[in-house]
Amino acid sequence: MTRDLGTTNGAWTNTSVQVHGRKYNLPQRPTVVVCVDGFDPEYLQAGIADGITPNLARFVQEGFSTVAQCAMPSFTNPNNVSIVTGAPTAVHGISGNFYLDKKTKEEIMIVDDSQLRGTTILEQLSKSRVRVAAVTAKDKLRKLIGHGLDIQGGALCFSAEKANTCTLSEHGLSDVERWIGRPTPSQYSGDLSLFVMDAGIKVLEEDRADFLYLTLSDFVQHHSAPQSEASNDFYRALDSRLGRLAELGAVIAITGDHGMSDKADEHGNPNILFLQDALEEKWGQSCARVICPITDPFVKHHGALGSFVRVHLADDQIAKQVTAFCQAMPAVELAMERKAAAELFDMPADREADVVVVAKKSFVIGSCAKDHDLSTIAGHRLRSHGGLSEQNIPLILSVPSKEAPGSRVSWRNFDAFHLALNTVSV
Amino acid sequence: MTRDLGTTNGAWTNTSVQVHGRKYNLPQRPTVVVCVDGFDPEYLQAGIADGITPNLARFVQEGFSTVAQCAMPSFTNPNNVSIVTGAPTAVHGISGNFYLDKKTKEEIMIVDDSQLRGTTILEQLSKSRVRVAAVTAKDKLRKLIGHGLDIQGGALCFSAEKANTCTLSEHGLSDVERWIGRPTPSQYSGDLSLFVMDAGIKVLEEDRADFLYLTLSDFVQHHSAPQSEASNDFYRALDSRLGRLAELGAVIAITGDHGMSDKADEHGNPNILFLQDALEEKWGQSCARVICPITDPFVKHHGALGSFVRVHLADDQIAKQVTAFCQAMPAVELAMERKAAAELFDMPADREADVVVVAKKSFVIGSCAKDHDLSTIAGHRLRSHGGLSEQNIPLILSVPSKEAPGSRVSWRNFDAFHLALNTVSV
Repeated sequence: MTRDLGTTNGAWTNTSVQVHGRKYNLPQRPTVVVCVDGFDPEYLQAGIADGITPNLARFVQEGFSTVAQCAMPSFTNPNNVSIVTGAPTAVHGISGNFYLDKKTKEEIMIVDDSQLRGTTILEQLSKSRVRVAAVTAKDKLRKLIGHGLDIQGGALCFSAEKANTCTLSEHGLSDVERWIGRPTPSQYSGDLSLFVMDAGIKVLEEDRADFLYLTLSDFVQHHSAPQSEASNDFYRALDSRLGRLAELGAVIAITGDHGMSDKADEHGNPNILFLQDALEEKWGQSCARVICPITDPFVKHHGALGSFVRVHLADDQIAKQVTAFCQAMPAVELAMERKAAAELFDMPADREADVVVVAKKSFVIGSCAKDHDLSTIAGHRLRSHGGLSEQNIPLILSVPSKEAPGSRVSWRNFDAFHLALNTVSV
Repeated sequence: MTRDLGTTNGAWTNTSVQVHGRKYNLPQRPTVVVCVDGFDPEYLQAGIADGITPNLARFVQEGFSTVAQCAMPSFTNPNNVSIVTGAPTAVHGISGNFYLDKKTKEEIMIVDDSQLRGTTILEQLSKSRVRVAAVTAKDKLRKLIGHGLDIQGGALCFSAEKANTCTLSEHGLSDVERWIGRPTPSQYSGDLSLFVMDAGIKVLEEDRADFLYLTLSDFVQHHSAPQSEASNDFYRALDSRLGRLAELGAVIAITGDHGMSDKADEHGNPNILFLQDALEEKWGQSCARVICPITDPFVKHHGALGSFVRVHLADDQIAKQVTAFCQAMPAVELAMERKAAAELFDMPADREADVVVVAKKSFVIGSCAKDHDLSTIAGHRLRSHGGLSEQNIPLILSVPSKEAPGSRVSWRNFDAFHLALNTVSV
């Protein structure tokens, strides 16, 4: 199935691209990077041990595999952008799904690339005439991963969530439901992710792209622990699609945007620290605004409750006291002031809050109790992410790599493009 | 060089041993586990990148390699015992180099196996008539790793530090200096470790053992950062000896007991929190005894300053307050009460102090300033370990393994015997 991509598609203008100081070779074979949302290593371990994921087991055994760390905070937007830029959030500027505009004091959802700093590997590949397809489960990511793609020149970029509204001019294709053969899935379903995988398979079968980025949804992972029937069903279905991509001759790199931890107590109730309430009790009404950067339109997943929050203070002179106060709380793993947090986690200091608070593995942090709709997470144990405890994710290449897992102090999910484009050894 | 060990040395009584619920196959080929003391992954990365360690680079590329985590606290005794038992300290009971006897209130240095709970893999191999050699740089480890070895039946167990006092009856050999060809090295030298490696080579060359455990000293790592001339010299010399062991046909697993971090500020002064002084200032004289479990006879390495201490309180009713007080200190990564700490770090709860305090990456924690002789660490930046930041260590097998790095959520240094005995795929 190996094709000389550069020749069949017209001579490429160069053999590699540079993005944020790293070099990426243009693909020699059809190449797919899959970001499995909420891909905690425990799902992989269970999937291999229980025979649920035979294709992933084969990649792990015969290709490259390690446990890598995602960018902090361990949320979807920062990590998808890190993966497509090969860089931490300090470089590309997207350090949350949701943020407080420091000037206007407005809370803003990131739904486009206006906050993105610099280019992406996908954009540079597309500009070098590599045929790129970027498919996402959630439409909120579409403009970020699609930044600068040459849709008129043949690039594809669309979401499963809005599959039924695709147009040739904006997304590079239309009539997606008929093409895939089923209607746009519910945003609250595992099928939203499988639709993305099926789109990737179609793209390869019809030879419509040389390089694919497929990024999924963590609906299943927020609801279902490893080895549960629901997660087994999802990973079995995902695995068979990964097998099909391999069968079609693709080099596949697989990673996650973040892990996923159980955040409930022994009675099944969520372990929540409502931090703005606690701060206001001590320092008075409106002393602080606690921003939960996990907030996104998919609130049914997690009720906007994650394990990393940003505290903007009315008076930044009390930052030290607030940090010490937070650090002493049982739910808190780590509280740090702006500069220290930005340095430790490689986040953009100019976009950081006065204080950053990270929860312990079994806790989430909310803002005010009244602002979180807990009915959205009723009926199942809360599972979420955002903290240090959800930094671990698998990093897998379907074929052998020239680089060994042990040759680096640590691997990051944002090494996935490097792994797929620069290290394939066969 | 492959030998059918079971046949040439008389029929073995069984084909595997069980230790703490895990099964270990008897060695099919000469097998060596090397514990490189203070083996931070940064030394390996630099060694490979700079061409200092070609043999390790080959093992990493062609065998198995990953970054694993050591047992907590990240000190020498707990981790050597974890490696030779395949278990965390909660199981084998050795959770420090040094501890406070809760009954007698005496501070006790661990220099023998009287606190060890249960058996070791080395003991069980030896009892199964596998010829075992256990060689350590530091004599303080000798009785721990030598626990239950059948010296009369041919096992060898000695230290480089006391090489000149070995006797046939206690160590299984004598006249070691003549055998190795040079005098007992200084305990403050990298050569102490190389002497251990040379002894291992001699043992293999003379076919005196089937299974070797070689454990080194971290003198070089405490003094010299990765890529320094001193550390390059040491790792070059170590690497050539690893190459020789491979040449002699051995399967080699290599890991570390703990990592190593720089603990000095921008002026080169050590970042020290003297915790007993701080607690006594707040709660009065003798409110607490802070025990530094890094304490050992090799004080020139680190001045008994590590990143993990145990706080024994005169009045355990204030444990919660002390924990919150410690957690709020800038030098502190994590402060926890006995039960929570024992659970989180898999340590023996009955031997744990009232409060456990872990320092941040760039800090160490001492007891009282007057009790630490800082002159021992003058003239170089303090480098030390004990905390979470020194949990990462390489785990390497010189030959391919049936298990892939990515098949587990995490690897531990105490998987080294399993890797070497159970997973070799050629």
